[in-house]
Amino acid sequence: MEHTEIVETEGHLVDSLILQKIFDRVIETGAAFEVMHFDLGRTNEEMSRLRLKITAPDAEVMRRALDDLVELGCAAVDPGDAVLKPAENSGVVPDDFYSTTNHRTSVRIAGMWVPVESQRMDAVIVVGGGKAACRKLRDVKKGEAIVCGPEGVRIQPQYRARNRHGFTFMGSENSSERRTETAARKAAEQMREIRRAGGRIVFVAGPVVVHTGGARHFVEIIRMGYVDALLAGNALAVHDVEHALHGTSLGVDLETGVPLEQGHKNHMRAINTVSRHGGLRGAVEAGVVKSGIMYECVQRGVPFSLAGSIRDDGPLPDTEMDLVRAQADYARLLEGAHMVVCLSSMLHSIGVGNMLPAWVYVVCVDINPAVVTKLSDRGSQQTIGVVTEVGTFLHLLAAELGST
Amino acid sequence: MEHTEIVETEGHLVDSLILQKIFDRVIETGAAFEVMHFDLGRTNEEMSRLRLKITAPDAEVMRRALDDLVELGCAAVDPGDAVLKPAENSGVVPDDFYSTTNHRTSVRIAGMWVPVESQRMDAVIVVGGGKAACRKLRDVKKGEAIVCGPEGVRIQPQYRARNRHGFTFMGSENSSERRTETAARKAAEQMREIRRAGGRIVFVAGPVVVHTGGARHFVEIIRMGYVDALLAGNALAVHDVEHALHGTSLGVDLETGVPLEQGHKNHMRAINTVSRHGGLRGAVEAGVVKSGIMYECVQRGVPFSLAGSIRDDGPLPDTEMDLVRAQADYARLLEGAHMVVCLSSMLHSIGVGNMLPAWVYVVCVDINPAVVTKLSDRGSQQTIGVVTEVGTFLHLLAAELGST
Amino acid sequence: MEHTEIVETEGHLVDSLILQKIFDRVIETGAAFEVMHFDLGRTNEEMSRLRLKITAPDAEVMRRALDDLVELGCAAVDPGDAVLKPAENSGVVPDDFYSTTNHRTSVRIAGMWVPVESQRMDAVIVVGGGKAACRKLRDVKKGEAIVCGPEGVRIQPQYRARNRHGFTFMGSENSSERRTETAARKAAEQMREIRRAGGRIVFVAGPVVVHTGGARHFVEIIRMGYVDALLAGNALAVHDVEHALHGTSLGVDLETGVPLEQGHKNHMRAINTVSRHGGLRGAVEAGVVKSGIMYECVQRGVPFSLAGSIRDDGPLPDTEMDLVRAQADYARLLEGAHMVVCLSSMLHSIGVGNMLPAWVYVVCVDINPAVVTKLSDRGSQQTIGVVTEVGTFLHLLAAELGST
Amino acid sequence: MEHTEIVETEGHLVDSLILQKIFDRVIETGAAFEVMHFDLGRTNEEMSRLRLKITAPDAEVMRRALDDLVELGCAAVDPGDAVLKPAENSGVVPDDFYSTTNHRTSVRIAGMWVPVESQRMDAVIVVGGGKAACRKLRDVKKGEAIVCGPEGVRIQPQYRARNRHGFTFMGSENSSERRTETAARKAAEQMREIRRAGGRIVFVAGPVVVHTGGARHFVEIIRMGYVDALLAGNALAVHDVEHALHGTSLGVDLETGVPLEQGHKNHMRAINTVSRHGGLRGAVEAGVVKSGIMYECVQRGVPFSLAGSIRDDGPLPDTEMDLVRAQADYARLLEGAHMVVCLSSMLHSIGVGNMLPAWVYVVCVDINPAVVTKLSDRGSQQTIGVVTEVGTFLHLLAAELGST
Repeated sequence: MEHTEIVETEGHLVDSLILQKIFDRVIETGAAFEVMHFDLGRTNEEMSRLRLKITAPDAEVMRRALDDLVELGCAAVDPGDAVLKPAENSGVVPDDFYSTTNHRTSVRIAGMWVPVESQRMDAVIVVGGGKAACRKLRDVKKGEAIVCGPEGVRIQPQYRARNRHGFTFMGSENSSERRTETAARKAAEQMREIRRAGGRIVFVAGPVVVHTGGARHFVEIIRMGYVDALLAGNALAVHDVEHALHGTSLGVDLETGVPLEQGHKNHMRAINTVSRHGGLRGAVEAGVVKSGIMYECVQRGVPFSLAGSIRDDGPLPDTEMDLVRAQADYARLLEGAHMVVCLSSMLHSIGVGNMLPAWVYVVCVDINPAVVTKLSDRGSQQTIGVVTEVGTFLHLLAAELGST
Repeated sequence: MEHTEIVETEGHLVDSLILQKIFDRVIETGAAFEVMHFDLGRTNEEMSRLRLKITAPDAEVMRRALDDLVELGCAAVDPGDAVLKPAENSGVVPDDFYSTTNHRTSVRIAGMWVPVESQRMDAVIVVGGGKAACRKLRDVKKGEAIVCGPEGVRIQPQYRARNRHGFTFMGSENSSERRTETAARKAAEQMREIRRAGGRIVFVAGPVVVHTGGARHFVEIIRMGYVDALLAGNALAVHDVEHALHGTSLGVDLETGVPLEQGHKNHMRAINTVSRHGGLRGAVEAGVVKSGIMYECVQRGVPFSLAGSIRDDGPLPDTEMDLVRAQADYARLLEGAHMVVCLSSMLHSIGVGNMLPAWVYVVCVDINPAVVTKLSDRGSQQTIGVVTEVGTFLHLLAAELGST
Repeated sequence: MEHTEIVETEGHLVDSLILQKIFDRVIETGAAFEVMHFDLGRTNEEMSRLRLKITAPDAEVMRRALDDLVELGCAAVDPGDAVLKPAENSGVVPDDFYSTTNHRTSVRIAGMWVPVESQRMDAVIVVGGGKAACRKLRDVKKGEAIVCGPEGVRIQPQYRARNRHGFTFMGSENSSERRTETAARKAAEQMREIRRAGGRIVFVAGPVVVHTGGARHFVEIIRMGYVDALLAGNALAVHDVEHALHGTSLGVDLETGVPLEQGHKNHMRAINTVSRHGGLRGAVEAGVVKSGIMYECVQRGVPFSLAGSIRDDGPLPDTEMDLVRAQADYARLLEGAHMVVCLSSMLHSIGVGNMLPAWVYVVCVDINPAVVTKLSDRGSQQTIGVVTEVGTFLHLLAAELGST
Repeated sequence: MEHTEIVETEGHLVDSLILQKIFDRVIETGAAFEVMHFDLGRTNEEMSRLRLKITAPDAEVMRRALDDLVELGCAAVDPGDAVLKPAENSGVVPDDFYSTTNHRTSVRIAGMWVPVESQRMDAVIVVGGGKAACRKLRDVKKGEAIVCGPEGVRIQPQYRARNRHGFTFMGSENSSERRTETAARKAAEQMREIRRAGGRIVFVAGPVVVHTGGARHFVEIIRMGYVDALLAGNALAVHDVEHALHGTSLGVDLETGVPLEQGHKNHMRAINTVSRHGGLRGAVEAGVVKSGIMYECVQRGVPFSLAGSIRDDGPLPDTEMDLVRAQADYARLLEGAHMVVCLSSMLHSIGVGNMLPAWVYVVCVDINPAVVTKLSDRGSQQTIGVVTEVGTFLHLLAAELGST
């Protein structure tokens, strides 16, 4: 038996390609559509309005079509409340649980649209005490009320603003055949603007920052006050301290570029030295570590979190090897971030990308175009890719930030 | 005041490029050498013998020169015992600790050469009860006897065998401009040989195995009995189960190649389903997961270890998020391995590379040449790189293994 | 003084993202738009209709806006004839010449819409004898009538068909994390369909086809009759003949994968041998070259063109070192092609891409994602990228084609 | 019947890895060796001397072994004269012709060692009038005396100098995980040194130099007098002129980074404009082209050669589409070069690499590590790779050169 539903939405549907996606997904799920009403904004500023009749051959297809349309910002013309079901166990929810996107979401409870807190993707929505919030699956407690199915869920997709050339300087392309200098200038402008507005900028950094000689420039950026938190892994801190103690990074003399045959032991020595003082703070306070990124963070009270990985040597006492706790630390430091700058660390950048709502600006710098593309693919629409050597990018960024 | 030492070594010094490295490192550290005696093997089979006088301007340069020469297999003509000093604290050792390579090592204790157990790189050597063993820095206990300095340490570098074309089919090149078919055939030969000799083969696999349609072929290889253990991360298991349950992998229908818009939720559903049954074994035993890599491992009793990472969704109950424990699990499953096959997982492959002694064969398959190069750079000399799409490699490998 | 124009267009404006591009470009040029009428197709099959009022602050902005809109398929509501001006010299045209896209184009002459022949991009349109045709700048003769400005030019952009999953199996992504097997199957289906309809399939191939062991499979595809013409460079033919004569390709034994130290001379020997017989045909007829891609082409009368390059050794007598003639040869063999398969040759693939109208299907196989992206960037919208090792792709493609 | 030969050589056989290669190749060809005498240089400066007895099962194996050993600098203890045979036709030589390497070579004629002129690889040696010279196969005239077989040929391989850290700053690694700043400083030092000694520096450049904003910095380097010749293709000149005329490069505004939708036509306009003035010199002299790389070359009399390719639009009147002539132009401008700097142009860089003797320094800058590796693989041992964005490298290089 044929099923029919009427949905509607409004917004910059053409600019954001949402109109096209709505049609595509209806067809892909096996349903059909009829445009009941479409009002195209007459000028660049006006929003468009769409009302659509969806016809599906059975309930399952309709269900899948509605799932998709909700993700694109459509809602039933006459929505009921969200369907709530209890979690059958801790970390286990009903099969038809609603899986979140990273866009602003509301759920309808007792006839009212309630905004969902702590927005992130791949979470479930827990409702309680008149509030709704994203929750990681593993943190769900038995019996909590979980939003199931697309009914009573409304999403407000990120709208692409046509004129914001200030930040969309690259479009969707992550090409090395563009000027790194332009990219650095635009990123610096964005950072200054956020700073002026009292916003929060978080950096994610891999050890390549040190290997490419970028530490010096990163330290300048910290000193200028543009780093509100640093998220990294064990390796960044180890090689930064190794450089501070021995002038090497993974065995390469950074001044002369000459590989040091003994040098590869220096990172183990750096770990031993920091361990002797109980951690980075101890090593800085003892006057043993006197320069570098971690030194600067400790001295200026910039909070940092070092997440462990299976490949870590050591690790440093500061590195959190329990990843449930590391993820919580990362999430805490990302709270309220307006901009995240990811420097040559695929692993940590994707980890961070998963935690962020869609409206946070992300700049991703890597010499490998695939890393930038991979990050963009995961749905962080505000990701801007800069394909270049990270040390040089930091050089240019520090110069731009310092030139005002 | 000038310092002088006499060292000697023997082996296939020319083939293994060790002779050239010995000279290079002496010069690089600022010392000078004089060849006292060199006996070049007359034929391909004969070993060469070298006796060298090292002259250094000061004790520090001599120390660095000897550190390097020991790594290359040289030893003092008249060695004393290894210098042992107590660990000043748990996880903290004296500054001049000897940092291990992944080559066979012996230490001289009470005039006897004692082989070092559990060889791996970036470890320290703990001596006790007449034995010597590699130990990760963090596992050192206060007061244990730690080998310090290069004295009384002897290394037997891995010798390059000139005729073993069976395995050295790629030389040092990791090029896509070579036949993947040849690479698969040679790897299959090596695997069969190890199998016949009762050896152990461990696989390391990333989720790209599933995305590229390689799971089916990997399952065949497991069924043929060529996989003694599987080391992976959360993502491999999640996407494998997602594929088993929904026929998708990260939202792509693997039969038709069509992206499924709803598909990206399937990995969360897969996690929820496995969690409901308390883990992979439970889900297999309940008859919910009926195919795939993890199903096959559970059914055939192939041990596996899933190490967590900062980017993990879920994770599955089977994923070990405490990385100290995950590293211990990996190390346990790698014990006694004769060959390790790394399939498109840079993170886990490097983690595994750090744990292996130099004499284990490693095959590394990745579409990105940089990954293979990075793995080779870390000192695992037996690493053979195959730059190709991993699904196709597994297809060819399974066909080769099955054709006997 | 404000300028105003009214333009209109119809088509699958939403699916093809053309509606969004129209709005974007108006804003980007500094003009403004008002939607006078928009009729959104009610169902998947119905076309949309748009009438737009453009307002620009000056004539130059209006000119640029119209230039862009014409490229997107818009035309003035009441178009005049195309503006024709004489070429001032051979190879030199007026500054405001209309530069072509690769989409179907018509020009209005004496009140009639005349379709433009030999469509390709980056050409000028020459009008004469009631006809209009694309012409390369260098081939323009003094005094010929050249279309100038956007007036009287109408383009019919390629419409994206929503349901044609048969060919759009990759969307816009060029990822190795997709099944090569699926890609090969879909390409085979498309080839069979074109074959059945009597269409033309042209291959472009680089020497990596030989290095990766793909020659054997490519030969099968030629034998099955799927190759109507072969476009390549000197290197493909040299290494193919080298393989036929010596069993090597650039000095690697293709059966064992072992590099042959003498092997790098074999390509010079191959060139010398072919030169002795006056060319490939002579060498085949003399019974000297008895197998391989070029042998198969000569034997089966498949026309080929080998274009020279600055890096060529030799070259073979068959290689055309005059590139004006080589480009003409390529263009001749591409005439009427329905599908072009590009195998690991960035240089020749981009050369071919420049010559093709937008409606020819292009499959581009390369292990380097950047090559595929670069080709797509040049405006050949029907380009499908497969990121994999080309030898293996040919293996799979030949198997698929042979399995019917 | 067993064949025996005695060969000898001297030089820095260990440092240069030549000793190891000699042994390898003997074994690989199926022959055996016995070391009759080996005298290892006692210190870093002393040369080593080797005398080797080669035993082969048949004449063919011995022939192949000697071919290889000659390439490595070995010569028979009692060499005869080189074997000369007449070219059977123009461009056709005897099957056993000696194919050159890029190392210094001498041939024995009438008992005297005659140095070979115009050394390059993949050529034949023509003897006449008491002289010997490399000749491209295609330039050989019927009846000329061609050196055949390895007898009477002696090569002096390039010796690796252990202490020359000034230039060997990267070793064999082409890694982005090194400081671009260090690389630029070392290259600048080398350039200044060559300049002081009155040497010649040739640049090879691709259009990415313009796309990445590097033109400005390259112009500075030309002005400082560090560019003795420029080798490029059509695209570099077109995009450079496009930038000079319209401020765009392939349609991207280089100041703001914003893609210009109309911009892609600008390169056709640039070609038309230059054609109008009969070429680059004409356009500069007419005051139409007033800045950029080509402007600077014309103004300062820096000779340039633009080689055509199959993908060229236009081309400019200055572009040589006859590649036999283009190769001759390149070779002429490379004569006597001491250093060649290749900037992001794989095609032209490999073309140039083929023409150079082994003793010319080559710096290769590209964001793609595979390009650098490919160039190194072709036997240009002095190739130093810098993996970075070329615009930034030029920025740093210009700053380094200007800072003295």
